[in-house]
Amino acid sequence: MNWTLDTHSIVAPQDFVGSAVAAGIKKENGKLDLGLIFSTRPAVTAARFTSNVVKAAPLLVCLKNLKESGGAIRAIIVNSGNANACTGENGLAVAEKMAILAGRLLAIPPREVLVSSTGVIGLQIPFERMERKAAELKENLGPQGVEAVAAAIMTTDTVRKVCSATSSMGGSTVRITGMTKGAGMIHPRMATTLGFVLTDAAISRDLLEAALTHACERSYNRISVDGDTSTNDTLAVVANGASGAESVEKKDRLFDHFVEGLTAVCQSLAQQIVRDGEGATKFVEIAVTTAPGEPEATAIARSIANSPLVKTALAGEDANWGRILCAAGYSGVSFDPSRVDIWIGDLPVCRGGVGLPFDESRAKQILRSRDIQIRLDLNQGQASSIMWTCDLTKEYIHINADYRT
Amino acid sequence: MNWTLDTHSIVAPQDFVGSAVAAGIKKENGKLDLGLIFSTRPAVTAARFTSNVVKAAPLLVCLKNLKESGGAIRAIIVNSGNANACTGENGLAVAEKMAILAGRLLAIPPREVLVSSTGVIGLQIPFERMERKAAELKENLGPQGVEAVAAAIMTTDTVRKVCSATSSMGGSTVRITGMTKGAGMIHPRMATTLGFVLTDAAISRDLLEAALTHACERSYNRISVDGDTSTNDTLAVVANGASGAESVEKKDRLFDHFVEGLTAVCQSLAQQIVRDGEGATKFVEIAVTTAPGEPEATAIARSIANSPLVKTALAGEDANWGRILCAAGYSGVSFDPSRVDIWIGDLPVCRGGVGLPFDESRAKQILRSRDIQIRLDLNQGQASSIMWTCDLTKEYIHINADYRT
Repeated sequence: MNWTLDTHSIVAPQDFVGSAVAAGIKKENGKLDLGLIFSTRPAVTAARFTSNVVKAAPLLVCLKNLKESGGAIRAIIVNSGNANACTGENGLAVAEKMAILAGRLLAIPPREVLVSSTGVIGLQIPFERMERKAAELKENLGPQGVEAVAAAIMTTDTVRKVCSATSSMGGSTVRITGMTKGAGMIHPRMATTLGFVLTDAAISRDLLEAALTHACERSYNRISVDGDTSTNDTLAVVANGASGAESVEKKDRLFDHFVEGLTAVCQSLAQQIVRDGEGATKFVEIAVTTAPGEPEATAIARSIANSPLVKTALAGEDANWGRILCAAGYSGVSFDPSRVDIWIGDLPVCRGGVGLPFDESRAKQILRSRDIQIRLDLNQGQASSIMWTCDLTKEYIHINADYRT
Repeated sequence: MNWTLDTHSIVAPQDFVGSAVAAGIKKENGKLDLGLIFSTRPAVTAARFTSNVVKAAPLLVCLKNLKESGGAIRAIIVNSGNANACTGENGLAVAEKMAILAGRLLAIPPREVLVSSTGVIGLQIPFERMERKAAELKENLGPQGVEAVAAAIMTTDTVRKVCSATSSMGGSTVRITGMTKGAGMIHPRMATTLGFVLTDAAISRDLLEAALTHACERSYNRISVDGDTSTNDTLAVVANGASGAESVEKKDRLFDHFVEGLTAVCQSLAQQIVRDGEGATKFVEIAVTTAPGEPEATAIARSIANSPLVKTALAGEDANWGRILCAAGYSGVSFDPSRVDIWIGDLPVCRGGVGLPFDESRAKQILRSRDIQIRLDLNQGQASSIMWTCDLTKEYIHINADYRT
């Protein structure tokens, strides 16, 4: 792949500006909690939202605006500290006011704005605090401000999560820059948490949708922290064509190249979420191979990735492969357990469904690492799949036992 | 209901005997870990096993014996400390030897024996330790010994779980006596963990099956500790007719009476499992009412009962009703969240999908109790359902992080 990835610094693609302020929506005073992203030229946007039937108010506004603008979204207003979910008519009015506010600041129609919120569920959002900071939000707008938005969307995140990819494409240097947040309530079925990806590539809206579907399926839909699917999950990609690159208009080599870059950025962002999973000390890749089909392989990997018993054993650095096979067994997939081989790292621990004698000290050594791979070879087909998850520790309980108050 | 329930002492129904010994299968020396239950007269048995495709060796022997004997099972041999799961040909041979051993001790064909194992997965079971204790196991047999078996099946359980129901039925005093084990890996889809119910009622095998299906659906299939479904789940009911009561031969009033008693015993046992959930400090009933259908109500209750975020909030005594509605939202059931009312105990916290102002100190007081009810009124139908669950605490992680070694 000829995309260069950077997960440390974040550079805005051409003609994107951003800004963030501390509006007092988060409990902790002085923390950035309101952000604005803007393409100074027209753009197209594709987005995925939660599959939860309980959808937060901002998502309803996003769906309406995407429809009314025909995907011509070029701005995102986002707050943390309050999810604006389960807030009824009043919450919906606030989400609409956020779009209107952004539209006024940027001199664009409100229908060209996406609205995002993340934080506690069920509390009314104090909109007047946003209005009070509107002038400052506008003043701060600049290419450097995009980086500040990545900080403004954090809640229980302990690190900022960004990824920037660059490549030569269609005759120009194209940049795809993403940011995301999330550490708990992570079990995407469609997309998860908040993720915003900006690019100066030129691409039609339909193809941007297709590219996002591809990328999302291989990134956000392959991670799990705790099996909870949020009410606010949003992943949006905004493309403004400012790079001057040739426009992607059909499913050709240029499209494939863009998809590759977008997928790499989304995978990096999704994996950063798992690495920062609430209380997590380990990043675990669950690979299922030689399965009868890809959906079956994914279902088995997902079942293992979600098992509290597998995840607590990982926290305890215990090579309890029996729990891994057990979790595969209740995945809903019909398979023959007596053909399954299991590896922890490069250590074979189970062959043909039966335990192998293995060196416990070597197993401990593997499980002591920060990055672990668990592999199941089903030996009953050609398909494979991967999920990324983390361990389940006492710290997860600590973080979540008293989040609201 | 005119069944009298006793969850403290356990009395064997007529013509049932039991016995337990410490065979050294558990890590801790001197702990009871091998038990035998026997009906001194012919009996019929109905049983439910795990829906996990990975089935432990003893379950395969049970399925074969139930078939070969036409349900005429009258003995159960059970060990704890080793699940005899993922143990291959050798494990299957051991499970068969356990049935042969019990048959020899009791002078009955091995096909009239159920075999059960619970404990760590993937280790070979040391059968010679059982043989060494066979004579002692036989010597100890007696009506009082049934109580010892309830202790011999415990693993991470902190308390013995028993329930005995008596009633006048069909002209005699009939007793239904059950024991169960389990504290983790509890998420039954068919039946869970080990549960043995003995009765001196007289009933045909077909009707015993029907009664068990009814009871299981309302008890073991309505609990969840951690969302993991074990490889060894077994629930068996043995009826020997020794009470001299009129035999249940059709679905009449007598059958209904028996079903009522069996369901009450199974519900008590299942609830005892949740109360002893690994690390649990609270017993939580999730009631979903006015739902479009019973399966929908159950799916929503199950989704809430399994949410790590709901369960950690309960551990933290935090009235985070937003997580409750969120978990309902990803249950897979299509419903209108804007009509949902939520109660925590007798405190209304959400009406029409929107938060109500409520007294936080009153909420804390309710959540401080050991027993909590959460109720969702969907206001979109007539059906209702219930699940029983517990909170998720740091102690759960502690127990499971290092179980195997």
